[in-house]
Amino acid sequence: MSVRVFVPAASQPGQSLALPDDEAGHVTRVLRLGAGDVLRVFNGRGGEWQARITAAGKSGVTVDTGEAAPSARETRVRYTVALAALKGDGTDEALRDAVMMGASTLRPFVAARSEAAAALRGTRLERWRRVAVSAAKQCGRAVVPAVSAPVSFASLIADHGDALRVLLVEPALGRTVVRPADLPAPPAVTLAVGPEGGWTEDEVTMAERAGWTLMGLGGRTLRAVSAPLAALAACQAVWRDE
Amino acid sequence: MSVRVFVPAASQPGQSLALPDDEAGHVTRVLRLGAGDVLRVFNGRGGEWQARITAAGKSGVTVDTGEAAPSARETRVRYTVALAALKGDGTDEALRDAVMMGASTLRPFVAARSEAAAALRGTRLERWRRVAVSAAKQCGRAVVPAVSAPVSFASLIADHGDALRVLLVEPALGRTVVRPADLPAPPAVTLAVGPEGGWTEDEVTMAERAGWTLMGLGGRTLRAVSAPLAALAACQAVWRDE
Repeated sequence: MSVRVFVPAASQPGQSLALPDDEAGHVTRVLRLGAGDVLRVFNGRGGEWQARITAAGKSGVTVDTGEAAPSARETRVRYTVALAALKGDGTDEALRDAVMMGASTLRPFVAARSEAAAALRGTRLERWRRVAVSAAKQCGRAVVPAVSAPVSFASLIADHGDALRVLLVEPALGRTVVRPADLPAPPAVTLAVGPEGGWTEDEVTMAERAGWTLMGLGGRTLRAVSAPLAALAACQAVWRDE
Repeated sequence: MSVRVFVPAASQPGQSLALPDDEAGHVTRVLRLGAGDVLRVFNGRGGEWQARITAAGKSGVTVDTGEAAPSARETRVRYTVALAALKGDGTDEALRDAVMMGASTLRPFVAARSEAAAALRGTRLERWRRVAVSAAKQCGRAVVPAVSAPVSFASLIADHGDALRVLLVEPALGRTVVRPADLPAPPAVTLAVGPEGGWTEDEVTMAERAGWTLMGLGGRTLRAVSAPLAALAACQAVWRDE
């Protein structure tokens, strides 16, 4: 696969662009590319182009964009993944897989059983955004999904909009839940996944009252870090939206 | 959730059983349980029972089994997951998620781009089996899936039997592939997932000639460590076999 570089300013063929500092450093010091070498630039909004390095040195790297290049297909359904903040690097990992599985938006939130302190540190959001860029690079998407600032569970639940709102629940909950194949493909869906210890009874009740649909992914309990990926894979498969 | 202890010798109510050493140590030293405390034992073959500790000390822990207890539902389809050996702890992680997603059998193998040396070390197989036990405990299954000794790609591909044989391939491959929703639910399926660098052209050709079906999971490239979970989630969703 070609080297893919994230350059938000890219917008058309025939541009001369300076790479952002971190990308320039990676291209010269890690990949050891120089003037004349080719790569691709993508702008995070779906545009991707061939490009050639015109200058590389201590003052930075500049490239000229060429013709448009293909990038990974985007899904038809818009998937917002609402991720409860997890322990350690769990949120990073869940977020990376959600981006690679095609999520359009990531909405971290603080559940009753989340580690709130870590999630609410400002640097965490910056890190999640870097993870989203790196995951988009890795999986071939030219779209970098937005990662919003963490909100409370109450704000998440209250948020309306036109998306189908789905709360993923564990088998132990013992309530009636739908399965992915029960739902016709919506234009947009929000999939909310809980933290390691699961939802509290209160959270499930609040979500139900606010009109959320409870969905189960089967008879076995999944790891919180894996559940977003499993939910996306299941919905995309039944909606033929891979 | 109750404490769940793996005791292969458990088979019926009213048994007096000595816990295996590692389980005994965990129950007394980590969980600090003692005589009179209750837990559950499962035998790895689908049986699970309530149990009460009758003695706990330096010479070990004994329990009496009581009535049968419910465990997580098993799938209708038998899923064999053939996992290419991955770097570092990748295989452990992929295997853990596959067990939690309901796999019946795990078949590690060495692909052209696998790290063969690590996979073929004998201790690796013992570790994978411990991971399978721990994942079964965590997800509520009373079945511990078998983990077979690593085989070569050629042996994996040559293996017949009655299962539908599916090779998961990346979008970059550019060949015609089926999607999960194209396949009716089989009684048994083998899902083979490649290593970090993907399959070689030769491997894909060998598999096709041997009658394997190529399946894609969508337009974006997934991490090798996440692909088995995504494949199981997708197949279970379209086959209503969660």
